[in-house]
Amino acid sequence: MAHGNWGRWGSEDQRGALNLVDESARRRGVAAMRRALPVSLGLPLRAGAAPHAAIRPDVQHLMLRDGGDYAAGLPERPGLGYADDMLIVACHGTTHLDALAHVWRDGLMYNGFPATEVTSRGARKAGIETVGPVVTRAFFLDLPRDDGSPIGAADVEAAVAATGARPEPGDALLIRTGWLARWRAGTASKTTWPGIDRSVVDLVDRWGIALVGADNISVEVEPSGDPGCTLPLHVALIRDRGVFLLELLDLERLAELSATTFLLVVSPLNIVGGSASPVAPTAVL
Amino acid sequence: MAHGNWGRWGSEDQRGALNLVDESARRRGVAAMRRALPVSLGLPLRAGAAPHAAIRPDVQHLMLRDGGDYAAGLPERPGLGYADDMLIVACHGTTHLDALAHVWRDGLMYNGFPATEVTSRGARKAGIETVGPVVTRAFFLDLPRDDGSPIGAADVEAAVAATGARPEPGDALLIRTGWLARWRAGTASKTTWPGIDRSVVDLVDRWGIALVGADNISVEVEPSGDPGCTLPLHVALIRDRGVFLLELLDLERLAELSATTFLLVVSPLNIVGGSASPVAPTAVL
Amino acid sequence: MAHGNWGRWGSEDQRGALNLVDESARRRGVAAMRRALPVSLGLPLRAGAAPHAAIRPDVQHLMLRDGGDYAAGLPERPGLGYADDMLIVACHGTTHLDALAHVWRDGLMYNGFPATEVTSRGARKAGIETVGPVVTRAFFLDLPRDDGSPIGAADVEAAVAATGARPEPGDALLIRTGWLARWRAGTASKTTWPGIDRSVVDLVDRWGIALVGADNISVEVEPSGDPGCTLPLHVALIRDRGVFLLELLDLERLAELSATTFLLVVSPLNIVGGSASPVAPTAVL
Amino acid sequence: MAHGNWGRWGSEDQRGALNLVDESARRRGVAAMRRALPVSLGLPLRAGAAPHAAIRPDVQHLMLRDGGDYAAGLPERPGLGYADDMLIVACHGTTHLDALAHVWRDGLMYNGFPATEVTSRGARKAGIETVGPVVTRAFFLDLPRDDGSPIGAADVEAAVAATGARPEPGDALLIRTGWLARWRAGTASKTTWPGIDRSVVDLVDRWGIALVGADNISVEVEPSGDPGCTLPLHVALIRDRGVFLLELLDLERLAELSATTFLLVVSPLNIVGGSASPVAPTAVL
Repeated sequence: MAHGNWGRWGSEDQRGALNLVDESARRRGVAAMRRALPVSLGLPLRAGAAPHAAIRPDVQHLMLRDGGDYAAGLPERPGLGYADDMLIVACHGTTHLDALAHVWRDGLMYNGFPATEVTSRGARKAGIETVGPVVTRAFFLDLPRDDGSPIGAADVEAAVAATGARPEPGDALLIRTGWLARWRAGTASKTTWPGIDRSVVDLVDRWGIALVGADNISVEVEPSGDPGCTLPLHVALIRDRGVFLLELLDLERLAELSATTFLLVVSPLNIVGGSASPVAPTAVL
Repeated sequence: MAHGNWGRWGSEDQRGALNLVDESARRRGVAAMRRALPVSLGLPLRAGAAPHAAIRPDVQHLMLRDGGDYAAGLPERPGLGYADDMLIVACHGTTHLDALAHVWRDGLMYNGFPATEVTSRGARKAGIETVGPVVTRAFFLDLPRDDGSPIGAADVEAAVAATGARPEPGDALLIRTGWLARWRAGTASKTTWPGIDRSVVDLVDRWGIALVGADNISVEVEPSGDPGCTLPLHVALIRDRGVFLLELLDLERLAELSATTFLLVVSPLNIVGGSASPVAPTAVL
Repeated sequence: MAHGNWGRWGSEDQRGALNLVDESARRRGVAAMRRALPVSLGLPLRAGAAPHAAIRPDVQHLMLRDGGDYAAGLPERPGLGYADDMLIVACHGTTHLDALAHVWRDGLMYNGFPATEVTSRGARKAGIETVGPVVTRAFFLDLPRDDGSPIGAADVEAAVAATGARPEPGDALLIRTGWLARWRAGTASKTTWPGIDRSVVDLVDRWGIALVGADNISVEVEPSGDPGCTLPLHVALIRDRGVFLLELLDLERLAELSATTFLLVVSPLNIVGGSASPVAPTAVL
Repeated sequence: MAHGNWGRWGSEDQRGALNLVDESARRRGVAAMRRALPVSLGLPLRAGAAPHAAIRPDVQHLMLRDGGDYAAGLPERPGLGYADDMLIVACHGTTHLDALAHVWRDGLMYNGFPATEVTSRGARKAGIETVGPVVTRAFFLDLPRDDGSPIGAADVEAAVAATGARPEPGDALLIRTGWLARWRAGTASKTTWPGIDRSVVDLVDRWGIALVGADNISVEVEPSGDPGCTLPLHVALIRDRGVFLLELLDLERLAELSATTFLLVVSPLNIVGGSASPVAPTAVL
């Protein structure tokens, strides 16, 4: 199904599969909560805390004002001391939500928007500021692959079935591949990782999944085995279907809690023209 | 009530009044939803889109790779084009949640932590990474002040009463002062603004409010009229009580929707040692 | 003389008129020294110390480690305290030397290199790293224009004649328009300024000038009066002739010293693919 | 000789041994030129082109506008296309000149200035903006140490003698340890390197050397073997004597040219309060 969802929500649509997240999907998310327990799925932002491609700089956190300044006697405002800081972060360099403007093929992005809409001034179409908060139900699928083998449709179907819930349009899948845990242990490759393979795309279509997340760099298995396309599922999901990807998630706590389904809230920063936003998604169990 | 909440949740506590946001507070937030309609309260991140103190640089959004590169014939990966970008942002320079490590007085932060815990390496105590997602009920109080006059306890009580709901421990107050709307119209001062005055602190104590937000730079009215203390409510709320402040909110849509009470989800980036995090808080009406 | 110097130094040449700065030009610079007195022509790098176009962020200087950290008791290395810092600077946002890759017209840069050689990865041709140190003789021309009127060939010729020296190939012209002094006094426009007009281009050709500098944003007068071309002298000098421009110079001290001719040393940072480099040019009087 | 030069040039002096670089020193530099051949000693600025301590981020060069934008059809100014860019650089993360404010011991910097003069706002004393252009004579000493062994006074004396020139007050020493060449070859350690040892300090005193540079991270050998002091020669030279250090030089071309003595011009950016400046020093042979 090439260009599966182009035009489905109108020729000017920039939100893709998030159109499936309607009021009933959001209520389904709320209904999936059991203990109203919030869990952050965001990695720490600190240089060295997440792997990233060479194109992307390490995150930097810099203090503009701190307690040391006062200890050093810097005269400040009456009755108040304060700390102030800034952040330099690659939008894809920590836990982040990809915008639909992130990828293209044959010069076209999701919904046929030309790639030339993305210049040094940012994306004029399908930038992250067009997304808004995502509030929906998510399935947590704990499918660690120590051998880097791909996670296929059968694996996903079995794991979903084990939750006892049935996916419905607008739901999200959050898949733990075990890669982050191994990266932290110093035993993971930074250039290959386990992830979903192409067979999962059919499930996404069948179920109407709006968002897929994982604890690795690209959600999809790397390498994909497709010589003609780098990151073929980025093309199939983001570009052809407008399905959103949530990458570099920290899903360790969900695994400890044996999470199944729950409310997911992801609210990207409104970076105008951004190809992604760093986020700390919230699972509410 | 000086140092009102120091020690209340233990001598090592770093989460302050967020301890009041227990399961029942979160369930109260969920119960306040009517239409499950999510609204982002985050400003656009774009140079010039938000005012800030001179110490803080404008936000910068920079492309590392874009569609123009492909148009220019830059050879890229097989079958895939992509955009990549980075963000340079003052943590307090757009919509943000202050960490308790943001302010101190007489060398002490919330819970008596010395200000010297905050150095160029960031905050070792009460940094934003200790906060985690905030999920609670919020009251929206539309109290525009065209004349810059302070918003007092009587104003807040009346506006809360008008919602028909009764505040309970762990709730949040989001107050629209009208300053952002005037700033956008080019008629607002960047050095003075309306906001709450000290009388509101008693309400915060009485009701057990965990978080106060506003559509201005500091939540509190500026100038405060207190010659001995810059930002006296930062001291009273953040430092003495561990109450969180959410600043530079965009509350215009809530005003248009005549919002009253709803679910609020705020999930700061886990900036290790950060004195704040840029956020796009989500109101779920 | 369109594309005046294209091909003059070979079809692959990236250094343009700097080819005119040969050993005799350098020796002429050395011979012009009188007191061997070095003067920095670089502006202070500090937010607010230089005007810049809206596209360019203010310079930021951020400390990574400082004396306050030690005052705050941060344990550091044995027997040593140190400060460490970083700089965020627009390459054209302070005193800088433009690379020949900075401008193009009709899709072509100096020597016919296509503009598409400049992508998000930087300039593959004529980037600032191809320039190397400039060592030559410079003429200081003090031609303040309080009324913003252009500086023409007759003005330049008269001022050069007054130095008693005769320009030769490879020399530099540094022109004080008085704009920086007025900007510091708060009386200068940030969108219009005095500078050279097109008649000066003929002198550049006749004399073989390799570099022209000024104490304004673009060397050339703004507005130029040419509706068909923004910054027409950038096109005529950089793109057509490979002549280098040195902008936002601080020439106040040269004026105080009544400088005439002297040794000029400008050594750009080897920013790979850069369209400019911040520099602190040195006049040795 | 503890605190060797404190007070020597007055209690408020911030330029240290550069006071030795008087007119005769500068003329000596000029006289040392043979071919008037300029050589940049600056490393390329590009992520990965220089090693640095973990505290320091990689350099980043980012395009604000480029030829791809035009290829993508972005409407721009009439008759002009242009590239614009910015640089994020650790001041000590590439070829740089240390300010005297860079180090301290027992809370005191050069000339007894308290370390507390250096806060998040930068250095109020002895910052790099107080230095100005350095114009003097330099000796090139090619003393490669493949085994990482220290370079001592005898080595330096012999190499200086071999040049046939006699050091005089205000001269500079530029020492090639071979470490950069090995780092480029992938065979150098990033935590240990050859460099000068303490015996060289006596020569610096005896000769009146104003500046010492090398092709390694810290000029001095690492480790120093002094358990009580990290970087003991930073303390002895910068802090006690006000002698300047020039680090991460690219001296390969000087070695190829068998350079001996020549004119050295180093002009730091006037970073207000900076603890160093990235520079591209110029040797004029």
